[in-house]
Amino acid sequence: MRRCCVVGGGGFIGVNLANHLAGSGWQVSSYGRSPPTGSLDARVRHVAGEFTDTAALLPAVEGCDAVFHLIGSTPARAEADRIGDIESNVLNTLRLLDAGAAGAFGRIVFVSSGGTVYGSPEQIPIPETAHQWPTCSYGVSKMAIERYLSVYHRIYGLSYAIARASNPFGPYQRYGTGQGAVAALLHCARTGEPFTIVGDGTVMRDYFYVEDLAGALAGLAVYKGDAHVFNIGSGIGTSLNALVMLVESVTSRVITRRYQPGRAIDVPVNVLDVHRAATELGWTAQTPLRVGLARTFDWMSQQERHDGD
Amino acid sequence: MRRCCVVGGGGFIGVNLANHLAGSGWQVSSYGRSPPTGSLDARVRHVAGEFTDTAALLPAVEGCDAVFHLIGSTPARAEADRIGDIESNVLNTLRLLDAGAAGAFGRIVFVSSGGTVYGSPEQIPIPETAHQWPTCSYGVSKMAIERYLSVYHRIYGLSYAIARASNPFGPYQRYGTGQGAVAALLHCARTGEPFTIVGDGTVMRDYFYVEDLAGALAGLAVYKGDAHVFNIGSGIGTSLNALVMLVESVTSRVITRRYQPGRAIDVPVNVLDVHRAATELGWTAQTPLRVGLARTFDWMSQQERHDGD
Repeated sequence: MRRCCVVGGGGFIGVNLANHLAGSGWQVSSYGRSPPTGSLDARVRHVAGEFTDTAALLPAVEGCDAVFHLIGSTPARAEADRIGDIESNVLNTLRLLDAGAAGAFGRIVFVSSGGTVYGSPEQIPIPETAHQWPTCSYGVSKMAIERYLSVYHRIYGLSYAIARASNPFGPYQRYGTGQGAVAALLHCARTGEPFTIVGDGTVMRDYFYVEDLAGALAGLAVYKGDAHVFNIGSGIGTSLNALVMLVESVTSRVITRRYQPGRAIDVPVNVLDVHRAATELGWTAQTPLRVGLARTFDWMSQQERHDGD
Repeated sequence: MRRCCVVGGGGFIGVNLANHLAGSGWQVSSYGRSPPTGSLDARVRHVAGEFTDTAALLPAVEGCDAVFHLIGSTPARAEADRIGDIESNVLNTLRLLDAGAAGAFGRIVFVSSGGTVYGSPEQIPIPETAHQWPTCSYGVSKMAIERYLSVYHRIYGLSYAIARASNPFGPYQRYGTGQGAVAALLHCARTGEPFTIVGDGTVMRDYFYVEDLAGALAGLAVYKGDAHVFNIGSGIGTSLNALVMLVESVTSRVITRRYQPGRAIDVPVNVLDVHRAATELGWTAQTPLRVGLARTFDWMSQQERHDGD
């Protein structure tokens, strides 16, 4: 049975990925912050620990066929503490890669940031070969990790893939942490709290359902071809204003908008060209935005009913 | 009088740059390791200190119109200690940029590595817009610094230029430190020691004279145009085998070759497209390779005579 470890397994993507893998015949361990109670499939073995705690992390990845690297900050936190972002994420990644170089695991799949590593795109949709001048420090540290992966591959033969994910959303995404507009919007739809739009709402992003991302990452773990870098997204742009209206339509609620000045670190448009993933992996995002939003809203509603038990 | 500080002023490029600037009407201070005795123009004020010693560095750059950032490791040292390379170079650069963001100085000119930030080139000569997948960690940390400069420009309006220098050589370049083939070759020509060729000697590089680099950097300090990234080199490729023969011709000595296996971190060809510097700065490398080699050999001979006094 193939073994893997989801590093960052307590987070939004981590929980969804670990459950997806457990349901696909993988023996899954996960490592990271504690996941939400009851979120993990019973077949997943979770080890609670910090990414900085190499002594705990390395045994978790030892002997795995694939390691998924999902650790990261958020753009706002990385910008507020750039040095801390590098220390936490880049330096600890190098410690993990050193273990991989020494043979601790077979392959590493890194979740990079399709929304930030390209910066202001010169063309839409953005192909993997586009220039990379991130407009924020979060994108720079993700990009540095991408490049170190390539160096480790060259020097040590470490097998790797990079998933430049656009804007995943779905169950377990938290609101109020800068993780994403969808979680915040659905929260506002449920509670009636006003939704804060940073800028004028014309910023366009490539939203896609987290279960689709999990499928892409699972595919990258066993991909045998020559490519290393994959855009993973829907390939479809949706403005924030359109997303608000779509959430209103899906949830049958009215959302109050509040506007804040735009931030320099945000780019106006980010939509990924996802043809490589289709060609090389046979993967495309299957879940229409409206369907993903409805599922996530249903999940939130169930959660709140459980919380109220 | 325009004021500047050469950070890394004790090194090979730093000494040449500081002297060039002092001779061009700049009030020059330099900061870094102690330069070779007698190397600095009397008008240059040198402050000895480590790049890590922010308390000493920041007063040296305070109030400068331009700061030249020449700090770096070598490819071999960066590969042997990647985390130390990031800590020494990237993190301390962020501390310097924070001072710039707060208004400590007017502009920063960063000497990046035209020989490593591109990795294995897809076209020769390499334009500034080429893809950047470094084959070594030295190139990754230089690239990360480039991107942070762009982020600081975007967020704080910090004025910056990046010089992607190819392979400068000239007086004060040290041999035996991985700084460059020319210094090692000229040393071997003088002493009769054998020269070690890593690989088969077909690796092609873009060698140019350090005084030309100093002129380019001085130009970048006052450049007012929109470009930020500049290849700085001769634009001409010379194989290591051809360089050995040229040094033999210039010095009228025979050099004994020894061969070592090639390294994974070295790319086979690196020649820069330098048209942007010509167009935007009116700069081209003026010194033919043969002339630069002869001048450097003369300088070495004079040094040894002085050392023998």
